Amino acid sequence: MHRTSINEALNAEAPRDSITLMGWVRTRRDAKGFSFLELNDGSCLANIQVIVDEGVADAATLKMLNTGSAVKVQGMLVESPGKGQKWEVKAKAISVFGDADPESFPLQKKRHSDEFLRTIAHLRPRTNKFGALFRIRSEAAFAVHDYFRRNGYFYVQTPIITGADCEGAGEMFRVTTLDPSTGKPAAENPFEGDFFGRGAHLTVSGQLSAEVFACSLGKVYTFGPTFRAENSNTPRHAAEFWMIEPEVAFADLGDNMDLAEDFLKSLIDHVRTHCAADLDLFAKFVDKDLAASLDNIMAKPFVRLPHGESIQILKKSGKQFDFPVQDGMDLQTEHERYLTEEHFKRPVIVYDYPKEIKAFYMRLNDDGKTVAAMDVLLPRVGEIIGGSQREERLDVLERRIGELGLDMSCYWWYLELRKFGSVPHAGFGMGFERFLMMVTGVTNIRDVIPFPRTPKHLEF
Amino acid sequence: MHRTSINEALNAEAPRDSITLMGWVRTRRDAKGFSFLELNDGSCLANIQVIVDEGVADAATLKMLNTGSAVKVQGMLVESPGKGQKWEVKAKAISVFGDADPESFPLQKKRHSDEFLRTIAHLRPRTNKFGALFRIRSEAAFAVHDYFRRNGYFYVQTPIITGADCEGAGEMFRVTTLDPSTGKPAAENPFEGDFFGRGAHLTVSGQLSAEVFACSLGKVYTFGPTFRAENSNTPRHAAEFWMIEPEVAFADLGDNMDLAEDFLKSLIDHVRTHCAADLDLFAKFVDKDLAASLDNIMAKPFVRLPHGESIQILKKSGKQFDFPVQDGMDLQTEHERYLTEEHFKRPVIVYDYPKEIKAFYMRLNDDGKTVAAMDVLLPRVGEIIGGSQREERLDVLERRIGELGLDMSCYWWYLELRKFGSVPHAGFGMGFERFLMMVTGVTNIRDVIPFPRTPKHLEF
Repeated sequence: MHRTSINEALNAEAPRDSITLMGWVRTRRDAKGFSFLELNDGSCLANIQVIVDEGVADAATLKMLNTGSAVKVQGMLVESPGKGQKWEVKAKAISVFGDADPESFPLQKKRHSDEFLRTIAHLRPRTNKFGALFRIRSEAAFAVHDYFRRNGYFYVQTPIITGADCEGAGEMFRVTTLDPSTGKPAAENPFEGDFFGRGAHLTVSGQLSAEVFACSLGKVYTFGPTFRAENSNTPRHAAEFWMIEPEVAFADLGDNMDLAEDFLKSLIDHVRTHCAADLDLFAKFVDKDLAASLDNIMAKPFVRLPHGESIQILKKSGKQFDFPVQDGMDLQTEHERYLTEEHFKRPVIVYDYPKEIKAFYMRLNDDGKTVAAMDVLLPRVGEIIGGSQREERLDVLERRIGELGLDMSCYWWYLELRKFGSVPHAGFGMGFERFLMMVTGVTNIRDVIPFPRTPKHLEF
Repeated sequence: MHRTSINEALNAEAPRDSITLMGWVRTRRDAKGFSFLELNDGSCLANIQVIVDEGVADAATLKMLNTGSAVKVQGMLVESPGKGQKWEVKAKAISVFGDADPESFPLQKKRHSDEFLRTIAHLRPRTNKFGALFRIRSEAAFAVHDYFRRNGYFYVQTPIITGADCEGAGEMFRVTTLDPSTGKPAAENPFEGDFFGRGAHLTVSGQLSAEVFACSLGKVYTFGPTFRAENSNTPRHAAEFWMIEPEVAFADLGDNMDLAEDFLKSLIDHVRTHCAADLDLFAKFVDKDLAASLDNIMAKPFVRLPHGESIQILKKSGKQFDFPVQDGMDLQTEHERYLTEEHFKRPVIVYDYPKEIKAFYMRLNDDGKTVAAMDVLLPRVGEIIGGSQREERLDVLERRIGELGLDMSCYWWYLELRKFGSVPHAGFGMGFERFLMMVTGVTNIRDVIPFPRTPKHLEF
């Protein structure tokens, strides 16, 4: 079925005597002797205007040309006398693939709430906002792959089902093939007869696997789904989300900060360049400060601030925080906001955190008290990236695992990376949805995921 | 930590007075007054030769320069007098990041079996074969994204956790947060208190979700992990694998066949162009017929053969098959091989299958007996792609769901796509690992996945 996409038609360089478009009617307006259709096929935000003269469509067809109907239009691409559009189509023939009953089709021409649209997630990508959003999501995903490939990284698809209870980054979902209604007494092996014969979970991070590949291919990244079984109903948490995790051999924390900043800026730049029209919708209708806020991220180098200094700044601020500022504490949202929005007024990378508040695999600094961790904090957004240099010294790593009471046997292969040709290496993770929320100004994670999964919500 | 990658060094256009390389020693050979190191950093298959003159490394360092050690080399990039390499490095300084005890490091210079290497999946990407394989995997993944983007498709990340018991493409893993040792009597709701409050599973296909997006953005694809809880221990099955699923609005089965053929050929072409050195390893050491077999796929248009005709050909073949040929039967491996390897001697797309042996969502043909399904069959490989035009007529689809005794309520949103602006559309699925096995000649799926998951195997 040959067709020209509306994106291609709108960008044509010359009129065409013959063109075939297929898409969905967004609106129809009748005038004396003809009708205007606004047609959209998802290839871009813009509709193309189709002029249907009286007689081109028979009565039965005309009756079906309603909002939501899918149609085929054959006609001529001609210059449009209207403003805001270069081209329009003068229909010679029009037919309907499938109509949409005006009484029951939910997406009539009016503004719908995000909450309502979540209940019709199978139709919401037909709206301007969600069409734009999922085109941006697609292009941003490409930007990730393109960035890393251009810079000599290899993409590793790390496993989703993991045998490690011990990733330790959050509550995990369990994966099983056993019947849910035949649990066993606690005394018996609950995994007997189960697919893997042992406890199996959905991964919370591909990092440990990515380290394997950094320690062989040099520079790698993962980009895949990760999971948290946390029962938190907030606009920023979903049970299933995509994460980007680069991991680099022969890199220290400074390299890691350089990479994080360059990666983030490149991604923003790519999306602004390639999704200008779609992004403009968000700047106009979703977040009036979006452009300024993105400009601010791009404008200057990020501040790099040791955690200890961040505490001093917060103490000196004279602000009343809900969480009082104390040495060695983790930063709360209010503290992050103060640093990025009030004190520095730009992105801040906080690094060298107290070891007590960070994970076992982060490299112990020479002071014996802090680890080579970093968090990238953005104004209005908060933490967008978290990472660290990894502990590459076998004895130090074993000691840390022991101190934290973790099960050493879980990590035999991870420890062997430190036993055979160990190298300094570093990496970070960025939640892809966090990035999408930042770049569009959308404030609920449910609205940047095709079919979001949250507690008690598994529709579609 | 600034370094030049070995790939970059080997492709240098001129000598360099000063260069820093970091990587792992593959071999060391001592001569009178100097040593040769073969250094690899994962950036490419080739090693770079490093000449370490006596006195450049102290005794302690020299002792650690063994196979597997990680080192930093500073020196000069100079023309190599040896053949097969343009450049080598004359070391001025060398230091060791982490050594590898020759007594315990498993990857000594000798051929290791694939079976053994699977037991050290955390080290196998440091071998030539698996390094090459995972670089090819990375580039092939990029080729997928690049192909679709160039052709106007949007990438949709469809959900991994699904509430639909009803995808029907195979045995599913269950996802839960309930304690495995507290099952309930069958009479009670087994999902009470579970994260989603209902049965949740790992997806077997993103197709139904992709259809939603095809019916809004026009041309889309998914590329993500999918799961089968089938207890089959074969070289071709894994519990977790990645699948590519394009879905196209305003497309029929002919368009679908065109896309499948063009996509597959483009992917092969991309990998041959961008991974020539890595692929050559497989052509030399893994599969002597690899190049000829890829040439054969590229050479001519694929045969397009209605299923009914394929049965006639098999009947007339005079061959004794283990599965006797009968009208309306599904093709077995031996039949596929006969068609592709003996009869046509090239790829064959079989289409218009009897509806009884295909899924409910495939479009019923006008004969009322067959559906607009297709399978792409390759010589030596078998089925690599399966797809169909989807049933877009609400009444026909409802009838099919009813005939098959499926639960209509599972599909309310899928049916609504046919109620509001329904369009003809089509798509297919290709297992990414199947493609990788085909393009490398590797015969076990465990050897093209970073950390394979199969029954009772969940290591790493």
